[in-house]
Amino acid sequence: MVTGRNEDLTRRIRLGMVGGGNDAFIGGVHRIASRIDDHFELVAGALSSTPEKSRASGEALGLPRIYDDFKQMAIREARRKDGIEAVSIVTPNHVHYAAAREFLKRGIHVICDKPLTSTLADAKKMVKAVENSDALFVLTHNYTGYPMVRQAREMVAAGDLGKIRVVQVEYPQDWLTIEQDFKQANWRTDPAQSGAGGSTGDIGTHAYNLACFITGLEAEELAADLAAFVSGRQLDDNAHVMLRFKGGAKGMLWSSQVAPGNENALRIRVYGEKGGLEWAQEDPNYLWHSPFGEPKRLITRGGAGVGDAAARMSRIPPGHPEGYLEGFANIYSEAASAIRAHRAGQDNPPDVVFPTVADGLKGVQFVDACVRSSGRNAAWVKL
Amino acid sequence: MVTGRNEDLTRRIRLGMVGGGNDAFIGGVHRIASRIDDHFELVAGALSSTPEKSRASGEALGLPRIYDDFKQMAIREARRKDGIEAVSIVTPNHVHYAAAREFLKRGIHVICDKPLTSTLADAKKMVKAVENSDALFVLTHNYTGYPMVRQAREMVAAGDLGKIRVVQVEYPQDWLTIEQDFKQANWRTDPAQSGAGGSTGDIGTHAYNLACFITGLEAEELAADLAAFVSGRQLDDNAHVMLRFKGGAKGMLWSSQVAPGNENALRIRVYGEKGGLEWAQEDPNYLWHSPFGEPKRLITRGGAGVGDAAARMSRIPPGHPEGYLEGFANIYSEAASAIRAHRAGQDNPPDVVFPTVADGLKGVQFVDACVRSSGRNAAWVKL
Amino acid sequence: MVTGRNEDLTRRIRLGMVGGGNDAFIGGVHRIASRIDDHFELVAGALSSTPEKSRASGEALGLPRIYDDFKQMAIREARRKDGIEAVSIVTPNHVHYAAAREFLKRGIHVICDKPLTSTLADAKKMVKAVENSDALFVLTHNYTGYPMVRQAREMVAAGDLGKIRVVQVEYPQDWLTIEQDFKQANWRTDPAQSGAGGSTGDIGTHAYNLACFITGLEAEELAADLAAFVSGRQLDDNAHVMLRFKGGAKGMLWSSQVAPGNENALRIRVYGEKGGLEWAQEDPNYLWHSPFGEPKRLITRGGAGVGDAAARMSRIPPGHPEGYLEGFANIYSEAASAIRAHRAGQDNPPDVVFPTVADGLKGVQFVDACVRSSGRNAAWVKL
Amino acid sequence: MVTGRNEDLTRRIRLGMVGGGNDAFIGGVHRIASRIDDHFELVAGALSSTPEKSRASGEALGLPRIYDDFKQMAIREARRKDGIEAVSIVTPNHVHYAAAREFLKRGIHVICDKPLTSTLADAKKMVKAVENSDALFVLTHNYTGYPMVRQAREMVAAGDLGKIRVVQVEYPQDWLTIEQDFKQANWRTDPAQSGAGGSTGDIGTHAYNLACFITGLEAEELAADLAAFVSGRQLDDNAHVMLRFKGGAKGMLWSSQVAPGNENALRIRVYGEKGGLEWAQEDPNYLWHSPFGEPKRLITRGGAGVGDAAARMSRIPPGHPEGYLEGFANIYSEAASAIRAHRAGQDNPPDVVFPTVADGLKGVQFVDACVRSSGRNAAWVKL
Repeated sequence: MVTGRNEDLTRRIRLGMVGGGNDAFIGGVHRIASRIDDHFELVAGALSSTPEKSRASGEALGLPRIYDDFKQMAIREARRKDGIEAVSIVTPNHVHYAAAREFLKRGIHVICDKPLTSTLADAKKMVKAVENSDALFVLTHNYTGYPMVRQAREMVAAGDLGKIRVVQVEYPQDWLTIEQDFKQANWRTDPAQSGAGGSTGDIGTHAYNLACFITGLEAEELAADLAAFVSGRQLDDNAHVMLRFKGGAKGMLWSSQVAPGNENALRIRVYGEKGGLEWAQEDPNYLWHSPFGEPKRLITRGGAGVGDAAARMSRIPPGHPEGYLEGFANIYSEAASAIRAHRAGQDNPPDVVFPTVADGLKGVQFVDACVRSSGRNAAWVKL
Repeated sequence: MVTGRNEDLTRRIRLGMVGGGNDAFIGGVHRIASRIDDHFELVAGALSSTPEKSRASGEALGLPRIYDDFKQMAIREARRKDGIEAVSIVTPNHVHYAAAREFLKRGIHVICDKPLTSTLADAKKMVKAVENSDALFVLTHNYTGYPMVRQAREMVAAGDLGKIRVVQVEYPQDWLTIEQDFKQANWRTDPAQSGAGGSTGDIGTHAYNLACFITGLEAEELAADLAAFVSGRQLDDNAHVMLRFKGGAKGMLWSSQVAPGNENALRIRVYGEKGGLEWAQEDPNYLWHSPFGEPKRLITRGGAGVGDAAARMSRIPPGHPEGYLEGFANIYSEAASAIRAHRAGQDNPPDVVFPTVADGLKGVQFVDACVRSSGRNAAWVKL
Repeated sequence: MVTGRNEDLTRRIRLGMVGGGNDAFIGGVHRIASRIDDHFELVAGALSSTPEKSRASGEALGLPRIYDDFKQMAIREARRKDGIEAVSIVTPNHVHYAAAREFLKRGIHVICDKPLTSTLADAKKMVKAVENSDALFVLTHNYTGYPMVRQAREMVAAGDLGKIRVVQVEYPQDWLTIEQDFKQANWRTDPAQSGAGGSTGDIGTHAYNLACFITGLEAEELAADLAAFVSGRQLDDNAHVMLRFKGGAKGMLWSSQVAPGNENALRIRVYGEKGGLEWAQEDPNYLWHSPFGEPKRLITRGGAGVGDAAARMSRIPPGHPEGYLEGFANIYSEAASAIRAHRAGQDNPPDVVFPTVADGLKGVQFVDACVRSSGRNAAWVKL
Repeated sequence: MVTGRNEDLTRRIRLGMVGGGNDAFIGGVHRIASRIDDHFELVAGALSSTPEKSRASGEALGLPRIYDDFKQMAIREARRKDGIEAVSIVTPNHVHYAAAREFLKRGIHVICDKPLTSTLADAKKMVKAVENSDALFVLTHNYTGYPMVRQAREMVAAGDLGKIRVVQVEYPQDWLTIEQDFKQANWRTDPAQSGAGGSTGDIGTHAYNLACFITGLEAEELAADLAAFVSGRQLDDNAHVMLRFKGGAKGMLWSSQVAPGNENALRIRVYGEKGGLEWAQEDPNYLWHSPFGEPKRLITRGGAGVGDAAARMSRIPPGHPEGYLEGFANIYSEAASAIRAHRAGQDNPPDVVFPTVADGLKGVQFVDACVRSSGRNAAWVKL
């Protein structure tokens, strides 16, 4: 019998978590995502802003170290020899900056849920905090972790579509079609916790990020017509947005939480001078490629015609569907690669790609621009 | 042996045609559509503005009476005892009004292709001409003839979706992705023949009409961002439009002729307080209905749960797909019912529905508004 | 004004019909199919075995000449100078032979619905009757008229799939899931009218014919397990069949009329050494082609990559769906081409393809073999 | 700071692994599956029959304890106070029994890949070994772990489909369309390692198991026509099977590894007197339900209309796709629940369901019956 533990190379990264208590959705997702490829070990948490809830949640998870609040956790973990090396921040939006700051300034890497912050002011402070820290900052725009999204991005970059002309992205859901009263709904419809954007912040930022990620384009200006269809709702639950990108491409973005029949229907279509691409989150293992003048092709995760960018994000053969959690895990695995390179004093490997604080700032600017534009009757505003 | 010819009731309607010569697409469609349900007999034509072509095309079709131009045809047919009772006008847009006028003023019913006219001025004249005529005017917004479009309209009217909030309609094609040089492409990209709208006129009007037809809503204002992506093209080949309807519903409309992989992908989604509907022209025998809080249902043409409005537009059992030509034929059959009622001095039967000159005017106003809005940087303009 | 009537070349073919009265499904289909491309004119009929019904149906259609029975019609029409040149036989199966014989022996071309006959003895007599006649015989295995079926056949013949190994064909419906009592159901479940096969005769023959048509293979033997699931039903309503083709390919065929959720779900998949094809009747404008080791391609009717065999069967551009009636009309148009060549004393043009009496005999042999095999506990029997 | 480690209740189950070295597919799947819900910790392994490979693979994984062979591992781990409580056996089929026996007789729970064994003799010995052990035995027929498979099973059991009549199950792949030469292909096409079944053993057993699992039916006899299409192949690469179930239902099963365009296309359709169900592994979050006489419904994982059996197998909201690994993890989580109940001296909770050694025996009997039947020209043989 021998032992395979290789401390330097393969040791799991010690991870903490802020937020993500019992009744949260996204906290559980982060925990599974961190485990799938076995790069992380969750060892500490401040899982709720209510200490009792934090304790109860931590005990249910069997966490070695449970804290009453994130600041206490940051301080104490930073002092331990076996303290956390990274922290996942999965609170409501308005807490992101305050929490991240405590870890960044102590050199603990931050993996933060989106949107970056609830306000543009906080977003800018977050950028500063990252710049002033040696630690890494990873934003979980998880949809960029899907292999076929990587494939799409690689194809656009390789020129397979020619110059991009049109980008149609949409993210409809239906869960807020009627008034809801539970934790997930409440904070997402509360400006104090979510920020100025409703559907724009919660899902529109994903759509916007995906469009930019795949096309490599930067939006220049937008015109947005926001609506809150459900009586009494303070934040938009439906957003119609027209986009203009640098270089002349144009786009439409639709986010909605009041579209019955749509569960989580993020979908993007990109059209260039030479061809088109189409990808849908609810059927994520497939990418349609339509070279102009040829039959459409269905590229599959792991199948023929898949390039390196997708292949390195995939675990199992084609026809064995990977899903949302695997896509999310890919962000964690990219983070792990970056953290390991950082441990070794190396640069981030060139093929390791993850959403950054800069992407997060763009997302908050997107929400801000949507709100500004809509307030001026959908006039064009710069991003 | 007996004979079943019942002159009064079942006699076919004598039909003429203006435009639709050999190299035209839509003329052939009208001819097949007029034959499918055996209500019409094509007996005369002025199939081209070039007399030689008109003759050659008419001879190839074996037409009993071939004319050099539509005016001559209108005059002579009006004089004949067995002259045409109706005429199909399938020319490029700029000829619609001039041709229709000649027949309307002689009491010959007009079945006219869309868009109504190439200019708003002509459209208003067309309305007058129809008002001043005893003859009927039918506009072939053929997509309103699909049974499942009728089903959708009936369900919205019955309140199955509750109050409508959001309408997403799109009509992408790809055939003008590159510069094309053939008859179909040339007139559609020529302002003198098509009018001020490119994709907006050719297909955007269909999308707009469909949205209004299904929802029963009237658009109040729009903001449009038009583009001509192909170098040298004078008319829009891509249009991004935001819509606001009377009563508060909002919508997006996208028309494009530069979206590779899209053949004729007209598609509409309608969302209300109680549910959603989705229909796609390329898969026309199916309608998705998503009652909020229940599983999605796939309603099929002729299948369980189909109402009267769709059933009367359908010929064969479910699972035996009807297509574009049958949908088009339904407009002709509605026209035949209306013409037969007119023959008998009766009102149009209440269940007989077809697009009218008023719908046509709205379509031209839509194009006009798109062009005006886009010229003012996508400002909101009234419809 | 000139006239385009060209008697010799373009004159419509005078058509009669046997069967297809008011409450029939397939008669109406034949009538529409005969009109779509304007090659035929229906001028005579014996639309029911009950003279009163025949008259009422004929009068409703406005038929010039209505007969009390098919024999009378054959005799009289053969004597007229303007008598019918072809007849469509759309009765229940057991009448096919008796009716066809009368017309064939008088030189009137026969367009006959499938299956060829209700008994193998009749089928063999039909073959003789065709051999002894100068007239043409066309069997409406209409699914062979779909453009993408032609495309599939052309690709297999061209070797695009390599040597064929596996053929999976199925034709499930659900309308006989419960006991039904109306004309369409009654004769199809009555051995005296349908013959020995239930689902095997009504739809299994279509599936079998389609498999042979596309692959060009001939079945050598089969093993069939038939069932009548609905209590009291005399004929099979579900058939499980294994096939062995000459040359070593193997197949499965499933026909069912008791499979809830299946309207008319004829579907075929063919696999060879180099690739696979898949086509579904309910989505007939598309053909999947899977070259081994490359991404799947979606070939569309009229789109890129479509060959001549499909192109000549198609009327309108891709994205404008053609359906069941157009596929059926293609058989009529092939028949018209053959009849016109016959008129002119020419051979059938080589690209004109339609199901023949030989195909019909094979279908009846298929039913016979299924019944024989099932009676011997699904032993293999020769075809 | 407190600690949440609750040794008795939440402590992870210590897991070992036999097989699953570097170049294996299924070993990696088992490892991820064991981690997703955090019930297991992999602490020991004999990952290859070649000691050097076992060591290299174990070191790459950072395993605490690496053994040269499974017997050594079973002996030593059984002696340790912190030894493994369960072992995953993921070797080629012919090793399953020999390995499982060593652990079972020492009271270590076994989680074994399918098929149960390579021979029927071994399968019967495995049943005995399980009967003689206090330890649990879980067979990873992982497709039974998909939530919508559980939903289907629950609906059938509840009588939603009425009495079952027809079961159509298929499992086509394409990876063996041509001769392959790599580890995964080699052992699966080698009778000494795989047993007498090729596609029947590797994937046919999954299809058969799924059919029985969902319907609750037991097959009585089958008729199988096996083929090895690729020259020189010793085991079937295509199997056509007809099934008869106790109680009168009938079925077809198709497994193939030579069907180009099929990646891993396991699919099942079940039809009863009152309705039908359809599920496809490549789109696993959806289940079609067709109540006879009503529109089809699309039931989604986590959506409206989902029952308890599916809900307890699901982690994230509808529209966030779960895939193959989550379905596999569900088997591990069921195993964990059973092992924890066993730890506590309790019976297996009634809602905890996993494939057993009895199911495994049935699978081997299925392969055996297929081979026997095919050897007798597809005669019916008892199961």
